[in-house]
Amino acid sequence: MTIVITAFERSPDGGKGLARDTRVRWTLEEAGLPYEVRLLSFEAMKAPAHLGAHPFGQIPTYEEGDLVLFETGAIVFHIAEHHAGLFPDEANARARAIAWMFAALNTVEPPILELVTAKLLEADKPWREERLPLVEERIRNRLRQLSVRLAGADWLDGAFSAGDLMMVSVLLRLKTSGMLDEFPNLAAYVARGEARPAYQRAFAAQWAINADKPSGG
Amino acid sequence: MTIVITAFERSPDGGKGLARDTRVRWTLEEAGLPYEVRLLSFEAMKAPAHLGAHPFGQIPTYEEGDLVLFETGAIVFHIAEHHAGLFPDEANARARAIAWMFAALNTVEPPILELVTAKLLEADKPWREERLPLVEERIRNRLRQLSVRLAGADWLDGAFSAGDLMMVSVLLRLKTSGMLDEFPNLAAYVARGEARPAYQRAFAAQWAINADKPSGG
Repeated sequence: MTIVITAFERSPDGGKGLARDTRVRWTLEEAGLPYEVRLLSFEAMKAPAHLGAHPFGQIPTYEEGDLVLFETGAIVFHIAEHHAGLFPDEANARARAIAWMFAALNTVEPPILELVTAKLLEADKPWREERLPLVEERIRNRLRQLSVRLAGADWLDGAFSAGDLMMVSVLLRLKTSGMLDEFPNLAAYVARGEARPAYQRAFAAQWAINADKPSGG
Repeated sequence: MTIVITAFERSPDGGKGLARDTRVRWTLEEAGLPYEVRLLSFEAMKAPAHLGAHPFGQIPTYEEGDLVLFETGAIVFHIAEHHAGLFPDEANARARAIAWMFAALNTVEPPILELVTAKLLEADKPWREERLPLVEERIRNRLRQLSVRLAGADWLDGAFSAGDLMMVSVLLRLKTSGMLDEFPNLAAYVARGEARPAYQRAFAAQWAINADKPSGG
């Protein structure tokens, strides 16, 4: 069955790979699955046709036969559940890989989203300069704990899994901030993720769409 | 096998049921599973013994024989996967229930966590009064979209699922803000969740621990 995902016609990040379709592309590449992409304008994302698939009017969505899914974590999970290479076979190890997926999205990403919001939506506010360090410190607390847990390992729990894919994807949002470099093992962890051929193909595919266009948002 | 979860010895919310162990207790009650609780002080949460189970030093954790899990979403998922009543049987409907779990945690909860942070950690900052309405508007945008999707249905996608359990749990954080009342169908949705006997038992169990103690945080 053909897999179709949606992505930004013009990504707000201009091709840096931070739009969430990159996470799904990466997962599909790790699983060795071909896919098609339907590009959406900002208007199309908020139109009834797309809201039927994605109640929050975002990308990516995922279509495979009768199945229509939204929410990146759920799409990555669905692919990982049905194809080899993204979850360990052993039941407890699989449960722990799923734990890292949720940890990436609900424990590590929220303070990072706060930073994105502070820089994008509150850039012109008088509190910007004084508040940013507070947000950064909340992120740093999480990075410190994650760095201790990772220690000298290549991946968070044994072999590379969908948990690492999600954690690396979340940490990539910090790349331009310089904060990752305060934790050399985390910087190396993210670089290991980026070096995977599947990530390289995913990045190149979104770059090909976005690199020659002016930023959309 | 005995299931053991961890919870606050003294919950920062004084028993309002907003600590994340309530989400796990509710899931266990829906599944009809008995469980034991190990209470942790704030010091114990940051001690090496607990950090071995939970790298971010939080509650809840979940122990079942050899399996040690952290991260509420992953614990709820694990229980839902292995016991009846929390995921639909049909494969596509199950995938969509999982999508609602992730949507609750990664799309709806982050702006709500921002509000919690703004009220708790930035309460004394000069920007508090001017900034709170901005954060609330970001929450309201999500509530508006969720309200449109829910429309007149009892639950988000057919029968009650772990997706509803997580979404109701996330929305409960807004109960004292009054924002839910702006969306009567969401307020009724949350009330339906709270009215479930399994939720009532979960709430009562955490209340019994916290109600007679001074707030711990």
